[in-house]
Amino acid sequence: MRLSELSEQSGVSTATIKYYLRERLLPPGRRISATQAEYDEGHLRRLRLVRALIQIGRLPVATAREVLAHVDDESLGRTIRLGAALWALPHGPDPDEDAPETATARAEVTRLLSELGWETALELGDLSPVHRSLVASVATLGRLGYPCDIAYLTRQARIMEQAAVHDLDEMETYASEAEQVENAIASAVLYEPLLMSLRRLAQGEESARRYGL
Amino acid sequence: MRLSELSEQSGVSTATIKYYLRERLLPPGRRISATQAEYDEGHLRRLRLVRALIQIGRLPVATAREVLAHVDDESLGRTIRLGAALWALPHGPDPDEDAPETATARAEVTRLLSELGWETALELGDLSPVHRSLVASVATLGRLGYPCDIAYLTRQARIMEQAAVHDLDEMETYASEAEQVENAIASAVLYEPLLMSLRRLAQGEESARRYGL
Repeated sequence: MRLSELSEQSGVSTATIKYYLRERLLPPGRRISATQAEYDEGHLRRLRLVRALIQIGRLPVATAREVLAHVDDESLGRTIRLGAALWALPHGPDPDEDAPETATARAEVTRLLSELGWETALELGDLSPVHRSLVASVATLGRLGYPCDIAYLTRQARIMEQAAVHDLDEMETYASEAEQVENAIASAVLYEPLLMSLRRLAQGEESARRYGL
Repeated sequence: MRLSELSEQSGVSTATIKYYLRERLLPPGRRISATQAEYDEGHLRRLRLVRALIQIGRLPVATAREVLAHVDDESLGRTIRLGAALWALPHGPDPDEDAPETATARAEVTRLLSELGWETALELGDLSPVHRSLVASVATLGRLGYPCDIAYLTRQARIMEQAAVHDLDEMETYASEAEQVENAIASAVLYEPLLMSLRRLAQGEESARRYGL
């Protein structure tokens, strides 16, 4: 399809599409003349993802470009490809290494992951920004005087394991590995707020069940 | 205890405590002389919650005051008291009523809640900011061209139901209803980022299990 048709089908203005092309968030179309290029379904899909990252995830253009570079890197194994793209998304703050609570928090996170048997997370450790932001969150709990309850976290983590099985089943409904990774990134950006809403609604239901309205 | 001791035990400076007192985020101490007041464990607990709301939740002072007013309102039933405090926390954006996707999204959320049998959420509907932000999220999915998969959301919601049982069990380990509500609010603010970290780590584990590293 031509640029105008890509714009029509995606609902994104041609000016915005040209901007994404210039910023290399969207790969160039196939040249068919000096002034025209041809775009395909892959461009339409990528455009959808770029909008999710920029408009909903509010990622800076440079960050979005980094995420997409990992999505497109076919030299990586699937777990690393997916992981690298997820790692490039914005995260919570890194732990404050000068704070006395950080060392304790790091030990607690290691204990939690050992208890769970999450070998990959243990192996990657602080290399992963997700791990670092988990350590920072636990350290914050400590600093504010809220004890970190490992048994509670273990139960919640077991529940997240079930959710991850559904997430990956969902991912596997897409045909190609590229589409699977694209979709996993979109769902990290788009579904997290939605899951937190469902969590709060579920708490309301359970509260009404236990104590009435 | 005196103000200086409250400061020492909480790790919050006396200047900050005085500010919280002035802003009515912390109830006044019991007057024991013209210049001195006595504070108790309740003040210490409340101070911890105020810090969680302001420093971690980044709530504006007026919003924090509103949340705390609901926490303290003993005239409310427990579900409403908890719900009102949670509703006063910051949420995702409200749906755009002019967007064509919003009506569809609202119908889809109603279908999801009916399928789940979440009567309280259905009854409260758009009165709840959580419900409104769920509608807005689903509308955004539609606008970006990502189909909202009700079957997937139903599975995720069932998992959140299990998490809510643990959350309320945890809440019930606190003796008084006031402490229970305080704790539920703190955990909404403090644990949500932590649960999202656990979710991403769980996805990594499941991916490594399925596809290797």
